[in-house]
Amino acid sequence: MNAPVWNLRDRQRRDRLARAAQALGPRLTGRHVATDAATALLEAVLQPRDRVCLEGNNQKQADFLAQALTQVDVQRVHDLHMVQSVLALPEHLDVFENGVARRLDFSFSGPQGARLAKLVSSGGLEIGAIHTYLELFSRYFVDLTPQVALVAAQAADRQGNLYTGPNTEDTPAIVEATAFSGGIVIAQVNEVVDTLPRIDIPADWVDFVIPAPRPNLVEPLFTRDPAQISEIQVLMAMMAIKGIYAEYGVQRLNHGIGFDTAAIELLLPTYGEQLGLKGRICQHWALNPHPALIPAIEAGWVKSVHSFGSELGMEDYIRARSDVFFTGADGSLRSNRAFCQAAGHYACDLFIGSTLQMDLQGNSSTATLGRITGFGGAPNMGADARGRRHASPAWLKAGAEARAGRSGAAGTPRGQKLVVQMVETFREHMQPAFVERLDAWTLQEQAGMALPPIMIYGEDVSHVLTEEGIANLLLCRSDEEREQAIRGVAGYTAVGLARDARMVENLRDRGVIRRPADLGIDPRETTRNLLAARSMRDLVRASGGLYAPPKRFRNW
Amino acid sequence: MNAPVWNLRDRQRRDRLARAAQALGPRLTGRHVATDAATALLEAVLQPRDRVCLEGNNQKQADFLAQALTQVDVQRVHDLHMVQSVLALPEHLDVFENGVARRLDFSFSGPQGARLAKLVSSGGLEIGAIHTYLELFSRYFVDLTPQVALVAAQAADRQGNLYTGPNTEDTPAIVEATAFSGGIVIAQVNEVVDTLPRIDIPADWVDFVIPAPRPNLVEPLFTRDPAQISEIQVLMAMMAIKGIYAEYGVQRLNHGIGFDTAAIELLLPTYGEQLGLKGRICQHWALNPHPALIPAIEAGWVKSVHSFGSELGMEDYIRARSDVFFTGADGSLRSNRAFCQAAGHYACDLFIGSTLQMDLQGNSSTATLGRITGFGGAPNMGADARGRRHASPAWLKAGAEARAGRSGAAGTPRGQKLVVQMVETFREHMQPAFVERLDAWTLQEQAGMALPPIMIYGEDVSHVLTEEGIANLLLCRSDEEREQAIRGVAGYTAVGLARDARMVENLRDRGVIRRPADLGIDPRETTRNLLAARSMRDLVRASGGLYAPPKRFRNW
Repeated sequence: MNAPVWNLRDRQRRDRLARAAQALGPRLTGRHVATDAATALLEAVLQPRDRVCLEGNNQKQADFLAQALTQVDVQRVHDLHMVQSVLALPEHLDVFENGVARRLDFSFSGPQGARLAKLVSSGGLEIGAIHTYLELFSRYFVDLTPQVALVAAQAADRQGNLYTGPNTEDTPAIVEATAFSGGIVIAQVNEVVDTLPRIDIPADWVDFVIPAPRPNLVEPLFTRDPAQISEIQVLMAMMAIKGIYAEYGVQRLNHGIGFDTAAIELLLPTYGEQLGLKGRICQHWALNPHPALIPAIEAGWVKSVHSFGSELGMEDYIRARSDVFFTGADGSLRSNRAFCQAAGHYACDLFIGSTLQMDLQGNSSTATLGRITGFGGAPNMGADARGRRHASPAWLKAGAEARAGRSGAAGTPRGQKLVVQMVETFREHMQPAFVERLDAWTLQEQAGMALPPIMIYGEDVSHVLTEEGIANLLLCRSDEEREQAIRGVAGYTAVGLARDARMVENLRDRGVIRRPADLGIDPRETTRNLLAARSMRDLVRASGGLYAPPKRFRNW
Repeated sequence: MNAPVWNLRDRQRRDRLARAAQALGPRLTGRHVATDAATALLEAVLQPRDRVCLEGNNQKQADFLAQALTQVDVQRVHDLHMVQSVLALPEHLDVFENGVARRLDFSFSGPQGARLAKLVSSGGLEIGAIHTYLELFSRYFVDLTPQVALVAAQAADRQGNLYTGPNTEDTPAIVEATAFSGGIVIAQVNEVVDTLPRIDIPADWVDFVIPAPRPNLVEPLFTRDPAQISEIQVLMAMMAIKGIYAEYGVQRLNHGIGFDTAAIELLLPTYGEQLGLKGRICQHWALNPHPALIPAIEAGWVKSVHSFGSELGMEDYIRARSDVFFTGADGSLRSNRAFCQAAGHYACDLFIGSTLQMDLQGNSSTATLGRITGFGGAPNMGADARGRRHASPAWLKAGAEARAGRSGAAGTPRGQKLVVQMVETFREHMQPAFVERLDAWTLQEQAGMALPPIMIYGEDVSHVLTEEGIANLLLCRSDEEREQAIRGVAGYTAVGLARDARMVENLRDRGVIRRPADLGIDPRETTRNLLAARSMRDLVRASGGLYAPPKRFRNW
C-alpha cells in the first residue's frame, strides 16, 4: 500500500505555479502577468474538473478574465465546476457552451436566466444548486472550496497588493477561501500603481496580477429614477411607513432594489417627518448606497449604512458623508457582501422586498417558466434569523404577535424578524402577482430540482402589502385565515376576487387586514408631490451636487 | 443653524491620533508603540462612552491590552461600552468594577459567568444583550460599530502588518468593522519581525502596534482526554452514528466541545468502519482542530475541516495535513470565526451539542441560577437555517419528516437542519438534565431580560439523544407527542418517570423513539475498547508524533 499523501493541494499548487512560470516566461514578473498572456496563464494554471470561482458579483465583473476563460484550449481545460455568485455576462455561459465548464453552483443569474434554462434543458450545464449569497460563500469553506479564483480589483501595487475601490463586494470571501486552501488567486486590475490608496487584499493572498485592457464592468443596479415612481407606489410606501415601520419601531433594516422601496426612502423626510418619526425609525441600514436615500440622509434620518457593494456615481457623496458610510482611510467605500449579508440576517429587524408571484400560503418566487434566475440575498434576509438572541422592540413585538395564544414549543416566547412582501396586485402586462400555484412548481419538474425554487417561504413572511392593504400574517392562526388574509389584499386578481368577503371583513375587524383608510391615509394625499425628490436632478440637487449619476440616468 | 457635520468620525480619528502622538512622544515610532506606553496610549486614544472591542476570543486573548485598560485614569476614560465576544479574563470584568466600562454586549462569558451575574445585580454593569458570535459581528457593521478595537496577533512587521498565526479567530471581523468606520485599531503582538510568515491583517488597517511583555494567552479549550470518556458516552456515540449520522447520510457537520461528541469522533474509524460508513458520512467539518478527530483523519474519513480558532499542540499536525485544514502559505492554520460560523449555519447539515437543562418543549439552556454565561456559537449553528436553498440528502430527509402530513405554509416542502441535543439524563452531582421548567425563566426575572436566555429552542431541535434512546422530534405532531417523546428518553429523572408509558410505547412503535436495541446496538459491544484512542498518548501515537499536547494533558 502506498503511503497516504496529505499535501496534494500544496503539490498541485506548486505544479500550477511552475507551469505558469514556464508558459509565460518573460511575460511574468514577480506576480505581474502581461495582459496578452491571460489565456496562456489560465491554460497553464487550470486543470480539468477544477472548481473555479470567476468573480461575478452583483455589480463588479471580472470581465477580462471571463473573456480569457472562453478562449482556453478545451483539450486542456474542460469540465470546470464554476462556483460563482452571479452569472451576469454572456461569457459566464459561453464557457458552458464551449465545454470549458460543465457544472455550476451559483446565487443569481438575472439577465442570463433564460439562456441558463436552455443550457440546462439541453444538457450542456449541470446545476449543483441555487444558493443565497452567504450560503454560497459558506460552502466555499466547506465543500465548494475553489481551486482557482479569478477576481477583479481597481488597482494593484508592484508587490501585488490589491485595492478594490468601493466595489469590494465578494472579493474578500472568495480570496480567503481560495488562498488559504492551497488554491491560486488571479486578479485582473484596471491599473498598476506605485502606492495604493488603501489595501483591500494583501499581496500575500494573491498569486497573479494582470492588467486588463479596459476597466472592469460595474453596473449601477441600485439607481431608481424617482420620475418613474407611480402614485400607487407612493400610497404603498405611506402604508409601509405608517402601518409597519412606525407600528413596530423599525430602526435597522434592509430594502430591496425596486421602485416600491425607493418610494419609501423618498417619503421619509416628507411623510415620515409629518408623522414625527425622525429618530424613531430607519436609523441603521444594511443597503447598497441607494441614491434614493440621499434626501433622508441629508435630513438627518440615517446614522449608518453598511453596504454589499457600491453604486456608480455615489463616490463623492459617500466620501463627503463618511459618518454614515463604511469608508477606508482613502475616503472611499469599503463594501463587503459577506459581512453585509450577515448584518442583513442577524442585525436587521426588517426586510422588505418584492416578488413576481405569491401563492395562498404566502410562498413567493421570482422564478418564472423558461428562466432560472436564482434569488441573490433575498432568502438570507427574508428568513427569520432563528439563531438571533438580542432583542429590539420591533423583533419582540413581531415575535409576540406570532406566538400569542400558542402552546408548547411554538408558544415559547421568541422574537421574530419582520419580512414584508410589497407587491402591486398586478405586475407588468397585467400579470397577477397572486396565483393559486407558483410557476416554481412547474420549474421544479422541468429542471428536476429537489424542491421548487421558492424565494421566500410563506412561513417566514410577516406582512403582505399591496395597494389594497396590509395583511399581517403573524396574526393568522390557521391555513384558512392566512389564505383569506392574502386574498383580502389581492385586489382584482382571480385570487382576490375569490375571497370569502365575510371572513375578510372579520380579519379586518381584528386588525389582521388594514386598509389605507384604517391607517388614516387619505387617498388625496397620495401624490408624487410627497416624494422628497421627483427626478434624478432632484437627487443631484439634494446631494449638493455630490451625486453624479451615470449618463443613462441623466435626462435633463 | 450650524451646517451639519458629516465627518465627525474622521475628525475624532485625527484628534485621537494627534493625542496619541503628543502623549507618547518618542515612545511612538511609525505605528510602533513602546511596551511601557500601553496605558498612556489607551488614555490618549479613548474617550468616555466609546464603544470598545477588547479582543476576547474563545481562545486567544488580548490580555496585555486588557490589563492596560484596567490601569487607565478613570477620570479620563470611563463609561465605555464594551462590545466583545468573550469575557474570559478577570480583567474583562475589572474594567466594570473600577468604572472604566459600564455597558456590555457579548456572546460568552463561561468562566466569568458568576461574577458577571453579581456585577449586573449590583448595578455595576448594564448588559445590552447576549448574542451568538456571528450576530455580534453582524452588529459591528450596523449599530454596535467599535470606535476602538484592541486586538492580539502573533507578530507584526516594521510596517505594522499583522500575522495572527493559527488563532486568527475574531480578528478580521473586528478590525474590518473598526478600520473602515474611522475607528482606531491597536494590536498587541508577541514579537516584531522583519518578515512575517504571512500577512493576516494589512498594516493599512492597523493604527498602533505594541509588543506585549509575554505571549498572549491562548487556551486549549477543545482538547478532550479520551481516558475520561465513559462507556455511557460510547453507547450514546454509537447511537448517534448509527441512528442519526447513517440514517440521514450526514456529510457536513459541526460538533460541540464535550466528551460526548469526542466519543463520536473516536468511534468513526472503528464502529463507523464496521458499519461500512466511511465516505458515506462526516467528510466535511466546521470545527476547531479537535485532537480527537486525529484517528478519523488518519483513517481517511475527513476531506475538510474549516475552523473557528485553532488548538494548542495541533500546529505540526495541521501543517502536515494541509489537504484537510485551511492553512496559509506558511503552512499554519488560518482560522476565522465569522466565516466558520457562517459555514456552520449555512453549509452544515447537522449540529450536535450538549446542554445543561431541557424542558418538555425541548427548549434547552446552559444558563443556571447565579450565572450569566451566554451561548457562543450554539444558537447560530443549532438553529434551522431558514435562508438555505441548496439541498442535500440529510437536509431533505429531515425536512420531509418535519412536514409530512402538514398543510398550508407549514406543509410547503422545505429542507431542515438536523439539530441534535446529546445529553445524559443526569449530569454532575445527579442534577437531572430534564426539567419541567428551565432555570432560564428565573434568570430572566432576576436580570430583567426581555426573554429567557434559551440556548436552543425546542422548535429547532430535531433529535434528543440520551443513554435511553433517541427521540425524533421531527416526527411529533402535537405538543403532547413532543412532551412524551422527551419524557420517553429522560430515564430516571422525575420528568422521565412521569411518562405516559403506553404513549411512549406507541411512539416507539412509530419510530419516534428508538432504543439502543431498536438500532441493533448490543450493550455488550459498548466498551471503551471501541475508541480509536483511549488516552492522550494514543492520540499522539495516531498522529505519528505530530500532535504535541499541552503539558496539562500529558499524563504519561
